[in-house]
Amino acid sequence: MIVIGELINGMYKDVGKAIANKETDVIQHLAEEQVKAGASVLDVNTGPYSKNPKDDMKWLVESIQKVANVQLALDSTKPDVIEEGLKLVKKRAIINSTSADEEKMAKIFELAKKYNAQVIGLAMDKSGVPNSKDKRLELGATIVAKAMEYDINTEDLFLDPIVLPVNVAQTQAREVLESIREFRLLSDPAPNTTVGLSNVSQGTKARSLINRTFLTMAVANGLTSAILDPLDKELMDAMITAELILNKNIYCDSFLDAYRKK
Amino acid sequence: MIVIGELINGMYKDVGKAIANKETDVIQHLAEEQVKAGASVLDVNTGPYSKNPKDDMKWLVESIQKVANVQLALDSTKPDVIEEGLKLVKKRAIINSTSADEEKMAKIFELAKKYNAQVIGLAMDKSGVPNSKDKRLELGATIVAKAMEYDINTEDLFLDPIVLPVNVAQTQAREVLESIREFRLLSDPAPNTTVGLSNVSQGTKARSLINRTFLTMAVANGLTSAILDPLDKELMDAMITAELILNKNIYCDSFLDAYRKK
Repeated sequence: MIVIGELINGMYKDVGKAIANKETDVIQHLAEEQVKAGASVLDVNTGPYSKNPKDDMKWLVESIQKVANVQLALDSTKPDVIEEGLKLVKKRAIINSTSADEEKMAKIFELAKKYNAQVIGLAMDKSGVPNSKDKRLELGATIVAKAMEYDINTEDLFLDPIVLPVNVAQTQAREVLESIREFRLLSDPAPNTTVGLSNVSQGTKARSLINRTFLTMAVANGLTSAILDPLDKELMDAMITAELILNKNIYCDSFLDAYRKK
Repeated sequence: MIVIGELINGMYKDVGKAIANKETDVIQHLAEEQVKAGASVLDVNTGPYSKNPKDDMKWLVESIQKVANVQLALDSTKPDVIEEGLKLVKKRAIINSTSADEEKMAKIFELAKKYNAQVIGLAMDKSGVPNSKDKRLELGATIVAKAMEYDINTEDLFLDPIVLPVNVAQTQAREVLESIREFRLLSDPAPNTTVGLSNVSQGTKARSLINRTFLTMAVANGLTSAILDPLDKELMDAMITAELILNKNIYCDSFLDAYRKK
């Protein structure tokens, strides 16, 4: 499982403030803590209040790379902000993200090709988020086909079925879980899959419980990565145990510690 | 989800002692606590040390029924011990269990027919527990076919793929999870499915975590019942949340309490 740490995102108040004031230590501490907790990729998002998102992206990537030797998921709706990060990354980047819209895919896959980056593809388009598994699969297939046009390996794609909050879209979770299972059948080699996990519990009063339960169910359906809070210890325990059950790590009595020491 | 409480089993030291000494209050307390925690069925097993299993089964069923108005799962390898319980139950019983062996199925399905009982069918036979999903499905299909010969409704069957301890049979958990998914396709109406949950963590040092993670994954695969310890609050929380995610209970902020008050 590829764990993408979600915490370096300007939408969180403290992080937004750290970006505005260029508090390097706050960002670097978040990077180090997430990697220590098991993240192999760090999401980097300047947030909605950034006044100079290109500069902020540059500063974030440089600050993080001084302390963490991991892949970065460059997270922005603006291709030029993403490109600012792509110019600087020391390890292969993940572009977060493209939708299934023609124009957006063209821009993002050109960038991916130019900088040898991986890509998160969201199963949504201009008409919004689908409300069925079938529509999600159709959009996933559109993204896979377009990636192939650009000679991008399908295993360098991360298809995201778009998780919705269970308190307002309760019928959708099952559709998302089945999409994760079926996305894997869209190409050979199979595309990776990912979810923006914490969205499932948005607005609920049992966030951590809902997050880890949904993640466990998604792992059972073959999920290969997730954007999540790796500092939620119970969440990471659930993920490690779910992968143990699927025989992805060898059992030993201290399997939780063993995973974290890897 | 049909929760079958596992605690009234003579293999547990205190319960074995209570059965030997006919301590009605111990058994009745266990019955009440399990029902309060969400069990809708109570497993009843006289245990391996019972000197008079027929008498003990009779005493257990009578004692439990004085305080709990739920279905009982009469759990014994001996059909005559099961029949002792079948004669006394006030609600429809579940016979726990038959294997896929011809002779055993004949005996158990005759009893089920005579007493209008439901049946747990284990995906194993004289050659032991299968080590693949395909063999489990073959044995499940054998049980479904035999049940049909006896005019037993397939939804009155609970197919159990046989869960093995993850520390000694780590490759089997995935086979079991996929079996749960595919058992449901064996007939229309679909058979129920069940697992002896705590077996998955036998001998490990993180029993509760492994139990609740496996149960969550099994629910994601369509599991419809489980034999488990309903007094493990975190286990029940995980189950309730997994079913919420599958839209089986309506979301409200206090969904855990709401489920328990049902």
